[in-house]
Amino acid sequence: MTELTNPVMPGLAPGLDGFFSPRSIAVVGASENSYWGRNVFRNLTATGFAGRVVPVNPKRETVFGLPCIRTLRDLTEPVDLVYIAAPTDAVPGVLEDAASVGIRHAVIIAAGFGEAGDHERQSELTKFAAAHGITVLGPNCPGFVNVSDGVSAYGQDIPAGTKAGPVAVVLQSGALATVMFKFARAHGIGLSKLICMGNEAVTDTSDVVEYLIADKDTRVIALFVEQFRDGARFLDLARRALLAGKAIVVLKAGRTEAGQRSALAHTGAVAGDEAVANAALKQAGVARVRSIEELIITAGLFASGVQLKGRRMAAVTASGGACDIIADRASDEGIDMPEFSPETQQALRDYLPGFATVQNPLDTAAVDTARKTGTAAVPMDVVAEIVSRDPGIDFVFYLGFNVVPQFEPEPTEAKKQTARMAHVRDMMDSAPVPVCPVSLSCLEVGPFARTLFETNGIFILGGIDLGLTAIGHAIRWNTARDAARAVGTFAAPQTGPYLTEGRDGPWSEHAGRAVLEASGVPLVPAVLVHSSDEAVAAAEQLGYPVVLKICAAEIAHKSDIGGVALNLATPEAVRSAYESVAQAGRTAACTSVEGVLVSPMRPRGVELYAGITVDPTFGPTLATGLGGIWIETFKDVGLRVLPCTTSDVEDMLRSLRASPLLDGARGGPRVDIPAAARAIHAVAQAALSLGPDLRALEVNPLWCLDDKVEALDALVITGR
Amino acid sequence: MTELTNPVMPGLAPGLDGFFSPRSIAVVGASENSYWGRNVFRNLTATGFAGRVVPVNPKRETVFGLPCIRTLRDLTEPVDLVYIAAPTDAVPGVLEDAASVGIRHAVIIAAGFGEAGDHERQSELTKFAAAHGITVLGPNCPGFVNVSDGVSAYGQDIPAGTKAGPVAVVLQSGALATVMFKFARAHGIGLSKLICMGNEAVTDTSDVVEYLIADKDTRVIALFVEQFRDGARFLDLARRALLAGKAIVVLKAGRTEAGQRSALAHTGAVAGDEAVANAALKQAGVARVRSIEELIITAGLFASGVQLKGRRMAAVTASGGACDIIADRASDEGIDMPEFSPETQQALRDYLPGFATVQNPLDTAAVDTARKTGTAAVPMDVVAEIVSRDPGIDFVFYLGFNVVPQFEPEPTEAKKQTARMAHVRDMMDSAPVPVCPVSLSCLEVGPFARTLFETNGIFILGGIDLGLTAIGHAIRWNTARDAARAVGTFAAPQTGPYLTEGRDGPWSEHAGRAVLEASGVPLVPAVLVHSSDEAVAAAEQLGYPVVLKICAAEIAHKSDIGGVALNLATPEAVRSAYESVAQAGRTAACTSVEGVLVSPMRPRGVELYAGITVDPTFGPTLATGLGGIWIETFKDVGLRVLPCTTSDVEDMLRSLRASPLLDGARGGPRVDIPAAARAIHAVAQAALSLGPDLRALEVNPLWCLDDKVEALDALVITGR
Repeated sequence: MTELTNPVMPGLAPGLDGFFSPRSIAVVGASENSYWGRNVFRNLTATGFAGRVVPVNPKRETVFGLPCIRTLRDLTEPVDLVYIAAPTDAVPGVLEDAASVGIRHAVIIAAGFGEAGDHERQSELTKFAAAHGITVLGPNCPGFVNVSDGVSAYGQDIPAGTKAGPVAVVLQSGALATVMFKFARAHGIGLSKLICMGNEAVTDTSDVVEYLIADKDTRVIALFVEQFRDGARFLDLARRALLAGKAIVVLKAGRTEAGQRSALAHTGAVAGDEAVANAALKQAGVARVRSIEELIITAGLFASGVQLKGRRMAAVTASGGACDIIADRASDEGIDMPEFSPETQQALRDYLPGFATVQNPLDTAAVDTARKTGTAAVPMDVVAEIVSRDPGIDFVFYLGFNVVPQFEPEPTEAKKQTARMAHVRDMMDSAPVPVCPVSLSCLEVGPFARTLFETNGIFILGGIDLGLTAIGHAIRWNTARDAARAVGTFAAPQTGPYLTEGRDGPWSEHAGRAVLEASGVPLVPAVLVHSSDEAVAAAEQLGYPVVLKICAAEIAHKSDIGGVALNLATPEAVRSAYESVAQAGRTAACTSVEGVLVSPMRPRGVELYAGITVDPTFGPTLATGLGGIWIETFKDVGLRVLPCTTSDVEDMLRSLRASPLLDGARGGPRVDIPAAARAIHAVAQAALSLGPDLRALEVNPLWCLDDKVEALDALVITGR
Repeated sequence: MTELTNPVMPGLAPGLDGFFSPRSIAVVGASENSYWGRNVFRNLTATGFAGRVVPVNPKRETVFGLPCIRTLRDLTEPVDLVYIAAPTDAVPGVLEDAASVGIRHAVIIAAGFGEAGDHERQSELTKFAAAHGITVLGPNCPGFVNVSDGVSAYGQDIPAGTKAGPVAVVLQSGALATVMFKFARAHGIGLSKLICMGNEAVTDTSDVVEYLIADKDTRVIALFVEQFRDGARFLDLARRALLAGKAIVVLKAGRTEAGQRSALAHTGAVAGDEAVANAALKQAGVARVRSIEELIITAGLFASGVQLKGRRMAAVTASGGACDIIADRASDEGIDMPEFSPETQQALRDYLPGFATVQNPLDTAAVDTARKTGTAAVPMDVVAEIVSRDPGIDFVFYLGFNVVPQFEPEPTEAKKQTARMAHVRDMMDSAPVPVCPVSLSCLEVGPFARTLFETNGIFILGGIDLGLTAIGHAIRWNTARDAARAVGTFAAPQTGPYLTEGRDGPWSEHAGRAVLEASGVPLVPAVLVHSSDEAVAAAEQLGYPVVLKICAAEIAHKSDIGGVALNLATPEAVRSAYESVAQAGRTAACTSVEGVLVSPMRPRGVELYAGITVDPTFGPTLATGLGGIWIETFKDVGLRVLPCTTSDVEDMLRSLRASPLLDGARGGPRVDIPAAARAIHAVAQAALSLGPDLRALEVNPLWCLDDKVEALDALVITGR
C-alpha cells in the first residue's frame, strides 16, 4: 500500500507532518442530515479542498453525490486522513479499520472519553494509536481548518469571509472556535490554521506548537489553553519560537489545582501555581492576555510584522479627548511619550495653525482638513509623516482613520479614500519607524474600509484600549527576544550524576551546606561539633559572638524546639548553650542528630529568601524576595522557572515591591544587588545539581550587608 | 416679546431648563455648503425636529428652502435657541443681537477662545452671557442631540440608527461624539441626550449633570471628563445621583497638573491628584472606566435597569473554555461563584446527561441542543431558568446567545428565534434574580439579532471581558448606594466661626494640639514648660520616661535641629535634655519659641499616619496609613475626600496593603481598628473645623497599642 502522507520534514513534530494538509480524506459517519457529517462536507467545499473525499457509511450509497463505502477496509486507495464522525462506542472499531489500511492521521469528534471521566476508554485509545503509529487529534474535537492550504477536517461553522494569513489559532476548547474566526474576520486578521485540540489523547498543544514553529505559513501562534500538559516542554518551545521570531500569544484560563507541596518548604505557599505560570510565560516571552478580544487583536498586531523596538511612542490624533485616553493607557503599559525634537516641533509649527499646541500626544483637530497636500494624503497623514521622522521616537500610534465610513461611500469619495490609503501605505513603508494605524473603538471595520486596508496590507488596531494593550505586548516581546538572543540557548540540563547521595527526605543543614558549597554559594562559616569543648574551640577559632544550632535531618524548625542559641559572646555562654541545644536534640528523640553547628553571629543586615520548589507543570522554580513579612504577609516575591541567568535574578530583586529596602531606604542596611544575585543564582544551580530528586531547597536567610552576602541557614529536601 | 422657553422647573439647573428641548431654533451662519451650516439642518431633519427653524445669513435669501433673515435682529418672533455657526470674530456681535431679541439659549461652535490660549476673549464671552442671562453651550462646541425629544442643535454626523433610551452622554470632547454614537448603536444602547461641552465658558459639566439628574428621560449619565472644574460640587451631585438611583459612569482622562502644595506636609506627595480623583469618584459611587468601550457597555448595563444586589453569580455557558475565562475575570472583579444548592444540583442532574459536570460556572455543552423543551425555549434556557431559582445566587451570567446569527436567517429559523427570544424575556421577568444575557465577544450584534433583542427589551452585554467589567461596576454601585442610603446626607458643612484664631502658616504643636483636642482626638499628655525645673516637675507628674520637644510654630522638623530628646528616665536626664532642646530652639533663631513640651514616652506600638491636605479639585482630603516606609516608600495609603464616616476610615485602614500588620502579623503589636478609626475621624473633623483657611493638618504618628490610641505629634498649617 502506497504511503501518501507528505515526506517527514526534519525538525517538525514528526507525527504532525502533513497532518494538516492531507490530499485525501475519508469521512466516517458521512451523512447529509447529521450536524457533523453534513458540516464537514460543506466546509471542505467552502475551503476549496481540491483532493479526494471518500464518504464512509454502511447505510448509504452516496453522500452529497459521492459514492459511499461501507467501512475504511473497503478503501481501494489509501487516504491521508480520516475524519471520524462516528459515535463513541464505534470509535475503536473505526481506528482498527484505519490501522488495517495504513491510515496515519485521524480526527475524532466523539465525546465520552477522559472529559466525561472515562479515562480507561481514553487510555485505550492512546495506546492503540501509539501501537499503530496513528496520530490523532481529539477525541472530543471538532477538528481543524487549514486556511492557508484550503483544507479542512472540521465539523463546526466556518464564518464567511475567513481569510488566509499568518495567525495560527490553537484552542483547548471547540466551543470558542467560532468567536475566534468571527473576531479575526471582523478585524481583517488572516489565519493560517485553526486547530481544536479536544482531549489531547495523542497529540497535545505542545506538539502542535512545535509543528507551527516550523510552519512556513504561520508567523504568530495564538493559544487558548486550560492546561499545559508538560510545562517545561512548552517553555522550551516558547523559547525556540522567541529565538525564531515567532510570537506566541496565550489566553491561559482556569486556575490549576495546587499540586502536592512539601509542608516544610513554603515557596509553594507564597507563589501559587498561577503566579508560577505567569512568571514562566513572561520569561519565555509569551504574551499572556486575558480576553478573547485581546488574544486576537494582539495576534493581529504581531501578524502585521511590525517590529516595536522601543517604548518611545508618538501619538497623532484628531481629538484632544483621545490624546488624554492614550496618555493614560500608554502610561499603564509603560510606554513613554517624549517631547518631539526641536526640528519636529518646528516642522509641526510650520504646518499646523498658530494656535495649535505642538506636543506629544498631538491633537491635529486644528488642522484644516480641506487643506491641499499636493498628494492623495489628507493633512493628518502629512503630520504623521513629520512625527515619524523624529529621531527620538520608536513608533507612531496613528489614530487617523475615524473618518473611514462603515459602508460604501459615493464613488468620488471612494476614489479619494482609495488613493489616500495607497498613500498611507507608501508613507508607512518609507517611514523610518513603524506607523501603527488605530481606530477609535474595537467595532468591526466595515466592508469598504476593510477592503481598503487589506488591499494595502494595512492592519488597523481595534480601538485605543485594545490597541495599546497589544502594543504593550509587542514591546515586551521584542525586549524578551533581544534578551533571549543575548543569552542564546541555555546549556543542556545536567544529566547526572546528581549530588543526592541517595538521601530521601529533609537533609541535615550540614549535608545541605555541602551541596550549596559545591555550587559556589557563599556560606557563613560553620563547624560541626560534638562536645562543649569542641564548641568552645570552634568559637575561639571563628570569633565571638557565635550561634549554635542543632544539626539533624529530621529537625527542620530548629528554633521551635530550642535547638538554636544566638549571640553567644563568651566561652561560658557557648558551653552552657551547647548543653541545652544538644539536650533539645535528644528530647526531639531524633535518631539523626549529627552534632551541633557553630557559626559566627552576623550583625543586622538585610535578610533575603531564596528557595526552589518543583512546580507540577513547569518544574524547578526559583522564588526570591525579602524574608519575614514581605514573603509571608505580602507575597512580595520574584519567581523564575529554572534555568535562569544572574541578570534574571537581578531583575527579580529589582522588581520586588520592597526593592527600595535593598537600596537602604530610611537609613537601613544596603544590599549589593549583583553580589546577592550571584549568590541566589548559585543557590538555583545547587537545586538543579540535585536532578529529578529535588523537592525543595531553601536558603533563609541569605544575609546581606553592603558587599557581604552569606547563606546563614539551608534546607534541602529530596525524594524519589 | 413673548418668552417661549419652558417654564423653570424647581430643582433643575435653572439656566438649562428647556435648553435641550427648544421649540424654535435660529441658525446663524446657515448655509448649504459649509460643513457646520449644512450638518445642523440635516440633523434637525434626521432627528425629526417639528419646531420652527430660522436660517440667519446676510448673504442668502433662502437656505434649504427656508426663508433666510440677515441678522437675529430681523426675527419677527423670538426663538428658544440660537445655534451660532459664525466665525470666532463674529460671535460677540451675534450674541449682542441675540440678547437684544431676548434669546436665552445659545450654542457656539467657533473655536479660538480659551482652548487656543485666548482667555480674555473667553472671559468677555462669559461676562456678556452672565450680564444678559444667556445660557451658552461652548464655545468650541459642536452642540447637542436630544434623542428623546427629537431635537438637535448639532453640527457633526449623527450615525444612522441612533435610538432613544435612558443613557445621557456628556463629553468634554467633540471629537469623541461620533464613536460614542456608533458604539452605543452597535450594542443596541439607546441615548436620551448627547451633549458636547466645549470650553465650558458658561455652562459646565456639573451644570449638565445636575440637569440630567432631574431629567425624566435619563437613567444613566456617561461622562468623558478631562477636568472637573469644581470637584466638590461634582461629588455632591454624584452623591445626589446615587441616592436618586441614577448611575454615573466616568471616563476621566488626563492627569491634572499637581497643584501648589505645602512643602511641610507630605500628604500631597504620597497621594497625588490622580489618586485623590480615584478615591473621590469611588466614594461617590461613580463607576470609573478606562476605555470608550467600557464607558458605553457599562452605561448600557445600568440603562437596562438590572439591579445587582449581591456578588454571588451563576454562569451558564455552552463552552468549558468560556467557563474558565469567566471564572478568572469574575475573580478579578471580586465576584463569587458559589456551588449550587443541593436542590439545584439535583434539578440539573435530572435535566443534563449523566456525564455532564454539575458545577458553577456551568458548561451546558453536553446538553442535547435538539432536545424538546415543550416551549419556544432552547434547552440552555431551561438550564438558565433552573439556576436562576437557586437561593444562593444573586444573578445569572447567561452566555446563551452565541448562536444568534449576524445576518437574517431563513424564515423558519427566524420564526423559531423570535419565539425563543420572547420566551427568554418571560423567563427573565419571572426569574427571582436578574438574568444578564452576554455575547461571546464585543463584536457588534447583527441587525436581525439586534431587532430581536430590542423588541424584547433585552440588553446583551458585549463580551465576557467587558461584560464582567460592567457587572463589577454595577455591583460596586449597588453597594455604594446602599452605604450612601444608610448614611443619608451629611450634615451641612460648618460655616464658622472657625478655630483658626487668625493664624497664618504653620502652628506650634501646642496650638495645634488644642484644635485636635476640641474635636475629641485622643492626645498623649503634654505640659508646656519654660525651665528645667518645670520640665522635671512635669516629668514627675507624668511619670518617667518622658520626651522633650521644642515647641515653636516655625520649627516643623524638630528632630532635624536637635529639638527632640527621647526616653528620658531620670530628673538629671530631663534637666540636661531641657537645656539642649531649648538651646536648639535658640540656635534656630526662632522668634516664635513657646517653650518645651514634656510628654510621657510611649512603648513600641503601631505608628499610623493621619493627614489632611486640600486637593485643588476636590477639597480637604484625608490620607491615612502606616507611617514610615509604608507611606514614604510604598505609597500605601487610604484616601477619602471629606466629609467621611468613622466606618469609611475603618475601610481605609482595612484596605491598606499593610493591613495585616494592624492585626499583629508576625507577633507584632495589634491595633484596635475601631478605636484608631474614631481617632482618625476626629482628626478629620479637626481639619474641617479650620474652615477655608485649612492648608494641612497632620498627626504623625498616631500611636496605637491594643486599645490605646494617642496622637504623639501634630502639625497644623493654615493660610489665607
